[in-house]
Amino acid sequence: MKTLAESRVAVVGLGLMGGSLAGALRGHCAEVVGIDPDRAAIAAGTARGLINWGAVDLAMGVQEADVVILATPVRTILKLIWEMGPMLCPGTLLLDLGSTKQQIVEAMEALPPVIHALGGHPMCGKESSGIGAADPELYQGKRFILCPLSRTTEETLARGEELVRAVGAIPLVLEAQRQDRLTATISHLPYLLACGLTAVAAEGQAADPLLREVVASGFRDTSRLAGSDVTMMRDILLTNRAEVLPALARAVDQLQTLGALIEQDDEGALQKLLAEIREQRRSLLE
Amino acid sequence: MKTLAESRVAVVGLGLMGGSLAGALRGHCAEVVGIDPDRAAIAAGTARGLINWGAVDLAMGVQEADVVILATPVRTILKLIWEMGPMLCPGTLLLDLGSTKQQIVEAMEALPPVIHALGGHPMCGKESSGIGAADPELYQGKRFILCPLSRTTEETLARGEELVRAVGAIPLVLEAQRQDRLTATISHLPYLLACGLTAVAAEGQAADPLLREVVASGFRDTSRLAGSDVTMMRDILLTNRAEVLPALARAVDQLQTLGALIEQDDEGALQKLLAEIREQRRSLLE
Repeated sequence: MKTLAESRVAVVGLGLMGGSLAGALRGHCAEVVGIDPDRAAIAAGTARGLINWGAVDLAMGVQEADVVILATPVRTILKLIWEMGPMLCPGTLLLDLGSTKQQIVEAMEALPPVIHALGGHPMCGKESSGIGAADPELYQGKRFILCPLSRTTEETLARGEELVRAVGAIPLVLEAQRQDRLTATISHLPYLLACGLTAVAAEGQAADPLLREVVASGFRDTSRLAGSDVTMMRDILLTNRAEVLPALARAVDQLQTLGALIEQDDEGALQKLLAEIREQRRSLLE
Repeated sequence: MKTLAESRVAVVGLGLMGGSLAGALRGHCAEVVGIDPDRAAIAAGTARGLINWGAVDLAMGVQEADVVILATPVRTILKLIWEMGPMLCPGTLLLDLGSTKQQIVEAMEALPPVIHALGGHPMCGKESSGIGAADPELYQGKRFILCPLSRTTEETLARGEELVRAVGAIPLVLEAQRQDRLTATISHLPYLLACGLTAVAAEGQAADPLLREVVASGFRDTSRLAGSDVTMMRDILLTNRAEVLPALARAVDQLQTLGALIEQDDEGALQKLLAEIREQRRSLLE
């Protein structure tokens, strides 16, 4: 088994996440190959020194790779897992960066056992997308969740953790369903709330064009995630329906509780609830 | 009538907003007096050079002031307007910094006409509160809404605009109901969504203590406003019920629309809606 420093790493999908990971891996492995159907992304990745070389053809790009990392939207990852099984050498470490993990880990279980597969989800991102926004520092100090398959060996997990640490991130090993439930609350729900807010503001802007003049940092921050890549988020929401829908229902419940206290003009209860929530946030972030 | 440069300005309430405004006004007026029942706030304001001197007694502090600025939570502003009418000299400019304006402007209308009153709402803030967080640069480049009373003269409005420009902000004159409707959407609704998200995350943390380990910037930004001062926000919500409740209902509608598309696994419609929302946000912020 080669060490990471001796490995050729192929990154499939040169967007924000893949391009940043490729750049972060340069110097920690023998060679970084970028694979993307978009030649402009490969040209940008090469020009910026994020990859050693690129390929538009999947089979050619992953040939002789020791590590393959899937960095596309989740449902493309699912398709790639089906397609690429026969292309990989025995002993290849296959990792992905998708935000939902149950369906991906399930698809990986069906690969030949000589492929050493592992689900991954780095807890970082940006409002902007595409390789133009790629930043090799993106993973520094961030959590990187790893979801083992039932067959994943200690050795495979150790290879995954080595790679995570090489890009500056902190590994956290979680069972796939647990990761999907936690990220539904902490990541997918905030996206939906940001979208709901933006849609209401757009209605408000249509009703009164002065609205844009009073936009301030509160709206900007609360709606920030609504600027995320649409295909990426669509795939996340649709592959995590079982966890996203209950999280959304709980949020609607909480909003209706707040609305009822406002409607009843219940000063004492409203103050108490808002103070509890403020303290909950402080405690979650400390 | 004295110019701003010749005026004594009294700021009532030395929190984040009042302390910052006081500091921003230093050098633009003859003297800045800080009024607060909390002696520690006055001591901090003096030590940091935000005010020339302070008073815990309202009547003493506003005596001989040419400009009085109310920088407390909204319902305290309402009480202060009732109380302080008899304390003010004829010709005093009375301005407030409350986020909701209909009830305040209505209360101001009942003051003797020799008091030149004007509603104000600066569109800036911070997650942190108190004079310790005060920053004379807080108003730089930010919108500062001014809501005239029916009796407000051009001259009074010009004095308000001069003061707004002196602290580096950009005046925007709006009728009180219109300001309350716009800020319900762009400022008070984001606060409620941030609170709803935080409450759901706290439930999630209670169910699985690992949740805090996967908190990332998405949650942090979307929930930021839930860290706002509780009394300030309670007063805002309760004095703007007529606009906040419909905005909240529209947000719940939008969230349910998104939830329905996820539940129906409607890939095309979900992609289309998310793309529209992303574009709406870009357009609102450009």
